[in-house]
Amino acid sequence: MRLEVPVQVRWSDLDAYGHVNNASLLTLLEEARVSAFWAGGPEGSPTTAIIDAGPGATSITVIARQEAEYLGQIPHHREPILVDTWVGHLGGASMQVCYEVLSPDRTELYARAATIVVMLDASTGAPRRLTDAERAAWEPYLGPPVDFRRG
Amino acid sequence: MRLEVPVQVRWSDLDAYGHVNNASLLTLLEEARVSAFWAGGPEGSPTTAIIDAGPGATSITVIARQEAEYLGQIPHHREPILVDTWVGHLGGASMQVCYEVLSPDRTELYARAATIVVMLDASTGAPRRLTDAERAAWEPYLGPPVDFRRG
Amino acid sequence: MRLEVPVQVRWSDLDAYGHVNNASLLTLLEEARVSAFWAGGPEGSPTTAIIDAGPGATSITVIARQEAEYLGQIPHHREPILVDTWVGHLGGASMQVCYEVLSPDRTELYARAATIVVMLDASTGAPRRLTDAERAAWEPYLGPPVDFRRG
Amino acid sequence: MRLEVPVQVRWSDLDAYGHVNNASLLTLLEEARVSAFWAGGPEGSPTTAIIDAGPGATSITVIARQEAEYLGQIPHHREPILVDTWVGHLGGASMQVCYEVLSPDRTELYARAATIVVMLDASTGAPRRLTDAERAAWEPYLGPPVDFRRG
Repeated sequence: MRLEVPVQVRWSDLDAYGHVNNASLLTLLEEARVSAFWAGGPEGSPTTAIIDAGPGATSITVIARQEAEYLGQIPHHREPILVDTWVGHLGGASMQVCYEVLSPDRTELYARAATIVVMLDASTGAPRRLTDAERAAWEPYLGPPVDFRRG
Repeated sequence: MRLEVPVQVRWSDLDAYGHVNNASLLTLLEEARVSAFWAGGPEGSPTTAIIDAGPGATSITVIARQEAEYLGQIPHHREPILVDTWVGHLGGASMQVCYEVLSPDRTELYARAATIVVMLDASTGAPRRLTDAERAAWEPYLGPPVDFRRG
Repeated sequence: MRLEVPVQVRWSDLDAYGHVNNASLLTLLEEARVSAFWAGGPEGSPTTAIIDAGPGATSITVIARQEAEYLGQIPHHREPILVDTWVGHLGGASMQVCYEVLSPDRTELYARAATIVVMLDASTGAPRRLTDAERAAWEPYLGPPVDFRRG
Repeated sequence: MRLEVPVQVRWSDLDAYGHVNNASLLTLLEEARVSAFWAGGPEGSPTTAIIDAGPGATSITVIARQEAEYLGQIPHHREPILVDTWVGHLGGASMQVCYEVLSPDRTELYARAATIVVMLDASTGAPRRLTDAERAAWEPYLGPPVDFRRG
């Protein structure tokens, strides 16, 4: 199962070529990831999964690696673009988050990407194991990882 | 009349103090302005006003001045913050856009700001007058400009 | 006396109009301010003034207001642009930092701006008075504030 | 041969965890790449290589893929961090740029990364072959590509 996460492109995400800058794409992925996988915190909106991260949480998440294939240039859209998000792998203290980035009408595939996220204890900075609750929440979103061309 | 424009804070808008960076606030205002005042373009979502700007348009907009009072630090929110947006002044080739930035539940006022936007012809780069259609579209949103303290 | 602070424009500071985005200009001012007025921290490079802020410091700085006039569009430059930086006012727990933003060869004035910075105690979050050492360090850079047109 | 490119971390590159945000790292790589491989343009500073890209050029460069391993969190530094930059591969219309990101004193390796850059004709948008002059300029910087762990 994949989560379809709408993410708004900002005018300032474009660079002088008129398309979303390559680094800004990773910011869009980060927004999809945070929206999909972080617990709600004070504002408490329900989330599909329950990672305890973000400001004030007892865990932090760090990125261990990231890979992206850029298939098409992303123009400005008034409507949010769609980031299909799923889990490629659940490790001991880490997970691989996978993405496909699509136009608002889903007719164009802009990018494929994957991120390895490591959970750290916020007080010690040491990796901490995924909790049973986290595993249970994410397993429905497990699927085959992105198959990068790596030409 | 004011437009209440929801704008999503991004994780990367926060700086190492854990709050929205002062420059990122202007990006949030820009998103409110674009959402409120630009014509729809290809995706064609209806807009309240019709400025012909953005990628591919025959006009561009430049910022002539900008002023902001920061009243409270903006934390990360899962829900969009709200940017009340209105027009403080309609000039010949320019307009003043005013903003109040509020928490998602409208209980906290984070900032007040104003931007002077100048319309330019995209081909010549020269200022161009507001059209009658633009004036008609924006007049309902005219209101008293932000009263800055400038202490 | 003014400090001439070189600041590198990044490719990603440009937006789809091909010029430095209005919010990115404030990031450039922030870089000038940090470079001019923060104490060195672990790397310990000498600074002209000694504000105790930044990561790990016992003080933090927050922005109370900011004002900018955009006089010309800033293109990409390989050479750093120059941000003339000085102090417009020293208050009890705050200071006004003033800027003029110039092309690398100083022939073009791109912007004038001013920022009111408030010093907070990092542990309590309450404003703290400027220290005598800070006042002594900054007084040589006192000069008349920016005279905004506010037309 | 590798180019050691100094790149300044900005305060706003840090996120609320107090380290350079994962997407901002790609912006730092972009700055290294632009500094190392773009021709000078109007300001005309000499460059080690001569790709005709950037604003006003007859070529544009697009990113086809990007991969990064984050080995350590990057704190704020007053001194520029160092991005060792070289060419992993020269293709027909593309090149692979490789990077190692180091602390200012070169004692800490923060990240390894690689980017595939494709040259496009700015008027047609079609890929264009690397010129002989470009190949001659870059060949001295050819070296073995980054050996990613991809665990």
